[in-house]
Amino acid sequence: MSQQVDQVRAVIWEAGELKLLDQRLLPLEQVYIACDDVVAVAEGIRDMVVRGAPAIGVAAGYGVAIAVAARYTANSKGWQQAIEADLTLLAESRPTAVNLFWAIKRMRALITTVDGDPRQAAIDEACRIDAEDLAANHRMGELGAALIEQRCAVMTHCNAGALATAGYGTALGVIRAAHAAGKVSQVYADETRPWMQGSRLTAWELLQDDIPVTLLTDGAGAHLMKQGEVKWLIVGSDRIAANGDVCNKIGTYHAAISARYHGVKLMVVAPTSTIDMSLANGEAIPIETRSEEELLSFNGKQVAATGARAWNPVFDVTPADLVDAIVTERGVVLQPNAEKMAVLMAD
Amino acid sequence: MSQQVDQVRAVIWEAGELKLLDQRLLPLEQVYIACDDVVAVAEGIRDMVVRGAPAIGVAAGYGVAIAVAARYTANSKGWQQAIEADLTLLAESRPTAVNLFWAIKRMRALITTVDGDPRQAAIDEACRIDAEDLAANHRMGELGAALIEQRCAVMTHCNAGALATAGYGTALGVIRAAHAAGKVSQVYADETRPWMQGSRLTAWELLQDDIPVTLLTDGAGAHLMKQGEVKWLIVGSDRIAANGDVCNKIGTYHAAISARYHGVKLMVVAPTSTIDMSLANGEAIPIETRSEEELLSFNGKQVAATGARAWNPVFDVTPADLVDAIVTERGVVLQPNAEKMAVLMAD
Repeated sequence: MSQQVDQVRAVIWEAGELKLLDQRLLPLEQVYIACDDVVAVAEGIRDMVVRGAPAIGVAAGYGVAIAVAARYTANSKGWQQAIEADLTLLAESRPTAVNLFWAIKRMRALITTVDGDPRQAAIDEACRIDAEDLAANHRMGELGAALIEQRCAVMTHCNAGALATAGYGTALGVIRAAHAAGKVSQVYADETRPWMQGSRLTAWELLQDDIPVTLLTDGAGAHLMKQGEVKWLIVGSDRIAANGDVCNKIGTYHAAISARYHGVKLMVVAPTSTIDMSLANGEAIPIETRSEEELLSFNGKQVAATGARAWNPVFDVTPADLVDAIVTERGVVLQPNAEKMAVLMAD
Repeated sequence: MSQQVDQVRAVIWEAGELKLLDQRLLPLEQVYIACDDVVAVAEGIRDMVVRGAPAIGVAAGYGVAIAVAARYTANSKGWQQAIEADLTLLAESRPTAVNLFWAIKRMRALITTVDGDPRQAAIDEACRIDAEDLAANHRMGELGAALIEQRCAVMTHCNAGALATAGYGTALGVIRAAHAAGKVSQVYADETRPWMQGSRLTAWELLQDDIPVTLLTDGAGAHLMKQGEVKWLIVGSDRIAANGDVCNKIGTYHAAISARYHGVKLMVVAPTSTIDMSLANGEAIPIETRSEEELLSFNGKQVAATGARAWNPVFDVTPADLVDAIVTERGVVLQPNAEKMAVLMAD
């Protein structure tokens, strides 16, 4: 595990308590919400107190540990049956990020085999998920930065940073490592409607590290790429299919098409916990649709015409053939396809 | 001139007074601002009380007529020299929409040749610009609707509607005509950051005409097009170069690239007053950059991290080879290029 200190932590386990940084309030306020039970964890995921596929996975791991403690304390004999409702509750909190299901599956594998009091073992496993994610991010940072051959501007979409992970970040981990190596002249960040992860989270994170960041609207990317300064589009992912199709925040596919049109390369940075080998391609990935209100209003104030409807899918799928590199903690897959992904995951 | 009644009017000349619908307040409030002098007209254009290339041209025409009245009334001998400052003021209000300069040039041609009292002649010319734009929109509506072969969903960006013109609209004029002919199943409108012309203006206009409209974020267009329902992307323009390159609201180029990738056709609808034959191609079109605050805040409330920078170009250029049709009041140019544009403008 990496020993580096990461300033921004979205998920904190401290003195037996889970605290989630409320990302709905960033950057104006930094408030941690303490989650005493599994219901609070599930609500925190559903309501986007915590967001970002790896961070959701980490939070879910702790959520299972909290549920184990409560169920075992209440009934040391029937707890394994009782906890199924908690696992279902967590699994239904959000549909797209596979890290959620991956973490629940991993926790279930532990608790269904543990002898005696499972409470400390569950906490230990959740902490391992957390620590492994942080270590994976540092490793991906090195691998991804090495792909950037010359100093250039890079572009990112949404927030795939420390706030979206156990720390350091996936896409922003690569950008941090590349910036430290003198390879990043400027980061351009899509504001990322409707939730403004770029403006609220990515800009906030990068400013804390003194990495120069400039925001743009989600529609301005093509005009930016045409200027020639940007050489890489670097993003995270919520689920990658067995053929390398990449599901990520709505707008990624739009940006990926524009990147290919302009000769800008696309790097997807995600731990292997994001890869779903059970799905042949991206068509099968469930795409969450959130409330129309996220588009029709802003900060509680009506923006759109009364009576207008909105379509608010919050993820899209970028086909593998638009992806130049998938960077994982196990290694890099260039020009991904089903064969290469199978080799990566078989290692 | 068309005799059709258009409900929405952004620019009204009534009883010798110019009134501009304050589009900054739509859709929540409908307030007209009376412009008593040329300074108020220039400010109304600069501050986006009135926006949309043809509407800016119409407003500028009336602005010149108001200036003529004031200058002639103050000094019936030296007015022609004094008015130059007013024309400069208007011309400097916004840089990209060529209709502004076109209207000023047309008004100057009149007032530099008029004998005697120029006041009524100037008003008459401004009214002709207004009426001709409205008539052009109805003609373009017919021509553009005829290009849509089968009932389908269409997509638009920004607002190229009645609010952006003398009435009826360019892109939305085509959509109105096509909807009336039963050819439009649904209109998808980009919300159009940062000014939200799609959410605030396009949705408002179309709802008034009972045309079904669904909003989406500017990054969701590619994901929408992939569904296969949308067959046409229909937009307006602020300036078209001699080779058919099209300048329009930021995000148009992004959407155009995605349209081509998905086999969705791109129709640009603009009167010939938008065509600038003095520019060989779109590279030479001045792109207005507006305040960073338009991205960093919303409704006066901070959104982005403190200290973040933003890049806010408000137009981009779509190369002619991504355009399937340019629809003008003089006719349609398919697969535009310099030769075809020259033929159109020579007619």
